[in-house]
Amino acid sequence: MIINDPKVHAEVMAVFARYEKALTSNDVVVLDELFWQSEHTIRYGGGENLYGAAEILAFRNARPSSGLERTLSRTVITTYGSDFATASTLFERETAPGKSGRQMQTWVRMADGWRVVAAHVSVIDTP
Amino acid sequence: MIINDPKVHAEVMAVFARYEKALTSNDVVVLDELFWQSEHTIRYGGGENLYGAAEILAFRNARPSSGLERTLSRTVITTYGSDFATASTLFERETAPGKSGRQMQTWVRMADGWRVVAAHVSVIDTP
Repeated sequence: MIINDPKVHAEVMAVFARYEKALTSNDVVVLDELFWQSEHTIRYGGGENLYGAAEILAFRNARPSSGLERTLSRTVITTYGSDFATASTLFERETAPGKSGRQMQTWVRMADGWRVVAAHVSVIDTP
Repeated sequence: MIINDPKVHAEVMAVFARYEKALTSNDVVVLDELFWQSEHTIRYGGGENLYGAAEILAFRNARPSSGLERTLSRTVITTYGSDFATASTLFERETAPGKSGRQMQTWVRMADGWRVVAAHVSVIDTP
């Protein structure tokens, strides 16, 4: 299994950037597109545990659309073969000094493109 | 891509159970074995952000070995093809009433067996 094949890695970097832009601009259509449309998709968020694409979309639609800007750091994308990847990043918001956000996603290349199949977001006091 | 092929799913169920037993009994040798021995491996924990297998092992070795018992709920293991899986579970500890733990792992079948390549553990107030 090839780890971090440059071509695959570049693909996931691009879709990760597209997701980040959609997140900070609250583009719910793109956010929904990039999550796997399945009952198996799971997203553990900052204050909620969402099981299935329908619960995730309902959360997106109810979410406040302001104050989403953030700065990423220590972002690591790793690809495994041609169809699987993990993306991990820390994030900070100016509105939450002293807090360290962590976002981890698992991406799979489905028939219609790269999709997040599992995601976990949490915030802790900066270690 | 076959989702949740029964044979693959059973394999990951077994290694997930082995990991859980090692975690609650603080069997550091098995915990270390089941994490991918790579600088790319990432574990975001309840209060720390660990990059690379060496940091993860150092954390394991320094961790208190008591009070690790926990009860799992809503555990979902999903497999993608034959070599890739995600495992998500909630957990509670008697010592932390009102708190909801969340653990998400990405598993990859490496040459030497199934390994966790990325993991994220966090605790929130029960939603």
